[in-house]
Amino acid sequence: MIGIAVVGYGYWGPNLVRNLADIPDARLIHVCDIRKERLTPIQARYPTVAVTDDLEEVLRDPRVDAIAIATPVSTHFKIAMKALMAGKHVFVEKPMAATTEEARRLVDEAARRGLKLAVDHTFVHTGAVRKMREIVEDGLGDMYYYDSVRVNLGLFQHDVSVIWDLAVHDLSIMDYVLREKPVAVSATGMSHVLGEPENIAYLNLFFESRLIAHIHVNWLAPVKVRRTLIGGSSKMIVYDDLEPSEKIKVYDKGITLNGGPHTNGDVYQMLVGYRTGDMYAPQLDMTEALNRELRQFISCVENNEQPVADGHAGLRVVRILEAATQSLAQRGRVVELGQARMIA
Amino acid sequence: MIGIAVVGYGYWGPNLVRNLADIPDARLIHVCDIRKERLTPIQARYPTVAVTDDLEEVLRDPRVDAIAIATPVSTHFKIAMKALMAGKHVFVEKPMAATTEEARRLVDEAARRGLKLAVDHTFVHTGAVRKMREIVEDGLGDMYYYDSVRVNLGLFQHDVSVIWDLAVHDLSIMDYVLREKPVAVSATGMSHVLGEPENIAYLNLFFESRLIAHIHVNWLAPVKVRRTLIGGSSKMIVYDDLEPSEKIKVYDKGITLNGGPHTNGDVYQMLVGYRTGDMYAPQLDMTEALNRELRQFISCVENNEQPVADGHAGLRVVRILEAATQSLAQRGRVVELGQARMIA
Amino acid sequence: MIGIAVVGYGYWGPNLVRNLADIPDARLIHVCDIRKERLTPIQARYPTVAVTDDLEEVLRDPRVDAIAIATPVSTHFKIAMKALMAGKHVFVEKPMAATTEEARRLVDEAARRGLKLAVDHTFVHTGAVRKMREIVEDGLGDMYYYDSVRVNLGLFQHDVSVIWDLAVHDLSIMDYVLREKPVAVSATGMSHVLGEPENIAYLNLFFESRLIAHIHVNWLAPVKVRRTLIGGSSKMIVYDDLEPSEKIKVYDKGITLNGGPHTNGDVYQMLVGYRTGDMYAPQLDMTEALNRELRQFISCVENNEQPVADGHAGLRVVRILEAATQSLAQRGRVVELGQARMIA
Amino acid sequence: MIGIAVVGYGYWGPNLVRNLADIPDARLIHVCDIRKERLTPIQARYPTVAVTDDLEEVLRDPRVDAIAIATPVSTHFKIAMKALMAGKHVFVEKPMAATTEEARRLVDEAARRGLKLAVDHTFVHTGAVRKMREIVEDGLGDMYYYDSVRVNLGLFQHDVSVIWDLAVHDLSIMDYVLREKPVAVSATGMSHVLGEPENIAYLNLFFESRLIAHIHVNWLAPVKVRRTLIGGSSKMIVYDDLEPSEKIKVYDKGITLNGGPHTNGDVYQMLVGYRTGDMYAPQLDMTEALNRELRQFISCVENNEQPVADGHAGLRVVRILEAATQSLAQRGRVVELGQARMIA
Repeated sequence: MIGIAVVGYGYWGPNLVRNLADIPDARLIHVCDIRKERLTPIQARYPTVAVTDDLEEVLRDPRVDAIAIATPVSTHFKIAMKALMAGKHVFVEKPMAATTEEARRLVDEAARRGLKLAVDHTFVHTGAVRKMREIVEDGLGDMYYYDSVRVNLGLFQHDVSVIWDLAVHDLSIMDYVLREKPVAVSATGMSHVLGEPENIAYLNLFFESRLIAHIHVNWLAPVKVRRTLIGGSSKMIVYDDLEPSEKIKVYDKGITLNGGPHTNGDVYQMLVGYRTGDMYAPQLDMTEALNRELRQFISCVENNEQPVADGHAGLRVVRILEAATQSLAQRGRVVELGQARMIA
Repeated sequence: MIGIAVVGYGYWGPNLVRNLADIPDARLIHVCDIRKERLTPIQARYPTVAVTDDLEEVLRDPRVDAIAIATPVSTHFKIAMKALMAGKHVFVEKPMAATTEEARRLVDEAARRGLKLAVDHTFVHTGAVRKMREIVEDGLGDMYYYDSVRVNLGLFQHDVSVIWDLAVHDLSIMDYVLREKPVAVSATGMSHVLGEPENIAYLNLFFESRLIAHIHVNWLAPVKVRRTLIGGSSKMIVYDDLEPSEKIKVYDKGITLNGGPHTNGDVYQMLVGYRTGDMYAPQLDMTEALNRELRQFISCVENNEQPVADGHAGLRVVRILEAATQSLAQRGRVVELGQARMIA
Repeated sequence: MIGIAVVGYGYWGPNLVRNLADIPDARLIHVCDIRKERLTPIQARYPTVAVTDDLEEVLRDPRVDAIAIATPVSTHFKIAMKALMAGKHVFVEKPMAATTEEARRLVDEAARRGLKLAVDHTFVHTGAVRKMREIVEDGLGDMYYYDSVRVNLGLFQHDVSVIWDLAVHDLSIMDYVLREKPVAVSATGMSHVLGEPENIAYLNLFFESRLIAHIHVNWLAPVKVRRTLIGGSSKMIVYDDLEPSEKIKVYDKGITLNGGPHTNGDVYQMLVGYRTGDMYAPQLDMTEALNRELRQFISCVENNEQPVADGHAGLRVVRILEAATQSLAQRGRVVELGQARMIA
Repeated sequence: MIGIAVVGYGYWGPNLVRNLADIPDARLIHVCDIRKERLTPIQARYPTVAVTDDLEEVLRDPRVDAIAIATPVSTHFKIAMKALMAGKHVFVEKPMAATTEEARRLVDEAARRGLKLAVDHTFVHTGAVRKMREIVEDGLGDMYYYDSVRVNLGLFQHDVSVIWDLAVHDLSIMDYVLREKPVAVSATGMSHVLGEPENIAYLNLFFESRLIAHIHVNWLAPVKVRRTLIGGSSKMIVYDDLEPSEKIKVYDKGITLNGGPHTNGDVYQMLVGYRTGDMYAPQLDMTEALNRELRQFISCVENNEQPVADGHAGLRVVRILEAATQSLAQRGRVVELGQARMIA
């Protein structure tokens, strides 16, 4: 039995509380928010859970093994670091931190203390994304591209751009699904409201291979689109998260390169043929992702195992977000993602 | 009655011939192709039309007022220039030429001789694109973005990249629909077949205003997508060319900025509100675009009027294609589009 | 303030409880279910609400003004009649009763005692159906047809056929949206599981005018469809309940009858022309239907007003369900719906 | 080499001519239409083909082995019978004849003379329908239902109802795809234009097994739908003819009956479980159906083989159309389809 506390009871906190209250191996001990009035409904619904606006009280409680953090991004580092230093395992909302430096310090601190550090990359626990990784691992041939569109008329964030709000999902999915990690990033975008962060952005991700990735995010689109295309030389995937059941479609489509280069005038060219075959939509596990994710986190703490989306994953994603933000300010200058350690 | 000759009888030439044969004010005199065997079926179908593999013969014929060119891009300049120098009006496939320099010389030559130079930007003659321009001219409020996706499992071109093959459509539509012209471009992309041109590409177009444009083209997508989003502060448009009848949808959606900037902590921010209203799909003219376009060209020659897609439009599009190609070779370096004259 | 009790805490009861607990003018006093163990979670969540397995206790309580019934259909009559005889207003799940005779007796009893009798035709409180009624009242020209498809891989009911489970929704919507009431019904269908009720059925509804209605319901379809077409001489509506936002589309499409009858050989015929115009999708109120409905019921009790879906509506729907069931047993024999009083 | 003549050059005749002119084993000799002015373009396009308004001349020509008939339905019998009596093989548009009696006499005459009689059930030669038959033959488990919707804003026919115009397609597909033949039919519908035939209709088809079939056809729908659902106990098919490539989807979905009947109170019931698995969309042959069909007819004549859609198929379909028309006039009275011979 793992004792856990939730810190931050705004938009996402209630989902953590609801799921944690249901997990047999977890015991939800505290819910903490500086806006104490928000905590009133918890007492009625979960009489055994203590509520408080005092984080120190939570961190001092020896029954608490782990902290789940659902506060604004700018506070992640401070709270997570305190928790680690108090010897608590940490589960933190995405993005894991506001800067690469913060993220790296959290990773290091958790490693030094032998504590679990997990980041809430919820999508990697959905049936759709897990199936997609499975298919990619079985092989699509040579990887060609990863293209994602995530747009809708969405809530403007005042503190972070659309990249930190929406592209973070795609980056966490890519980090989980693709074997290869990007080596550089560029981004363009625009803010259409004076004084507000960018509400539309386009990211390019470069890899050492010929793989190319692109992400389009937009808070001001008239229609909602959640579609990812993954192209390989032997298979291609369409992942449409708005489809009620057939979210993943696998196409036996592509090109075939026949007979090697040939001469057309004085230029050597490949003979390119086309292949179209069946499409199939595999059945997906429909378990609620957050529930699965929290159970896994609890189990990792209990059994000293590594979470799927660990601090390293969180760091890699934050590194890209930071680099994309730099690039955006310079009309798409390519920013190298750098050291092997960070992208291990 | 305008005498006309078609030069080039490959993929597109037959469409020109079929339509020109039906236009009352046009008289189709010659069809010319260096692959003479291709011309045989014309004689059976159109006994009054002469066929030849000799371009000079066509250009010498005083009954010929205008030449319609449907040959490979690399030959456009040479044939069009010869035609202009022979005093013929010119209608040429898109892209108008292989380089900006060629395009500019054609524009100058036509101007010097008082001849019509039209480029076959077919889409700008569709009911959908014409309606879209009408809506944009009526006003979408401040223009925010123009985003187009044009992907499918398409025929690899060996001589030009996917930008010259597919993005040319989007650039010609943008040139027609938007009042503002781009001032710079960047592009990323990749070739996945050794020795072949890029088969996937992403273009960014920068404007003097806060308008941002983006085009995604791909020959290797498992599904066909032809979708353009245009966002403005008061209205937004979705143009889906694969919809059988409701190709254009206009959304009364957007954000409203209330009460001016307010203070949140120490940052000034706008109060952003959301507006959703009705959507409507206007009825569209379903006339075949090419037919309409050729009638208009004939009429412009007869009445000394300017075609909708004239040499200047052709030049502006070629300039962007060329700049995007340069940018692509440098991982998305921004290329300025330069002189006012070119983008007039 | 209206005191209310919920009877039946199975599939739907929790939704009634959740909504009633939120309505300022209602005071939820009891929740009653014969399966007492089901009631445990209520005490934790709603400490002020009494739980019981004894209906008589509820009916004796003078604080209770109204009873909301969410028990199996076969028990609706007995419980609702008891409630009326105890002087309580009644809100009952659809279908209102298991037979026309039962439904009629409830209507009569409520009328005799001056009590409100409302039936939970939830759909008539959705923004989509309310908008549809508004458009129909504004006029579609002559009414041609009402066609609905409601199919999916759905839960088999053991006690009622797919008609009582699914077609009841369409019948309640039709009753609300159309001005005219059907005069006869026929139905075909089949049970594919031995000993179980019909899992697929087709209903025809006949009217005095040339309006024709048809409903297709199916528990064993591989895909989910929820689509209604309403055709009139001047406008047509498509209502697709699976569309996330544009559930209602109004088409300015139809035929025009020109110049009166003409002679073709020896047969008089109309000259039929086609009209296609714009389509629009009106913005819809997205309030939760059940919440709106319960507020309205409470308000009707308080202010002695008639609910939108009153006992007469419930009776009309049950009458059609009963007749359709008779018809189904006779391969679609037409069953007249009969007396004016019932279909008033 | 088979000599062939086309009789009737209205809407469909040009398609027959275009395809027959391309088939190596066929020699198109005559095209015949009583509206002689319609035949002028043929002479320019196909100089070796004779045109005439005199059917007798065609039938007397010994070079003519077979006649393809594309005239109005009311004339099929007379022309086909003359052709058979002149010793010509016959290919006739659907529906094969205007009455069952006519259809039966054609079948008998062809059999007596050892001539081929084929009916143009074009859909059964499409890749989609052929694949569907293949999947049904491989087995869907017990057959549950066949449900088709074929609606759009379509051309009013003045001589036949929507059943003869649209449902004929579904009946010909069902005849080809299902192993079982219907034993009875009922139909409801309505004419919304005075003096015109029914423009909306619903057909029920009854079988000896628990299979049930239903067809909805409508000339006055605001949207185009072409969708067929086939349900079986182990698999289900969705055939959507408007999908550009994935027209056929096969679902591994259904119910499972576990453990035999159980007692619930005093009623025996099955334990019904649900099964959902993968979906797949098989690749389809995209050959033009009419071309394939005509090649097959020519080959059947040459090699004395039976066409897929022979006179018996044509007769079965006409028998159902006739019975449905009778039923329609009586608000859906069930009409038995009768003798084994007709439905063999």
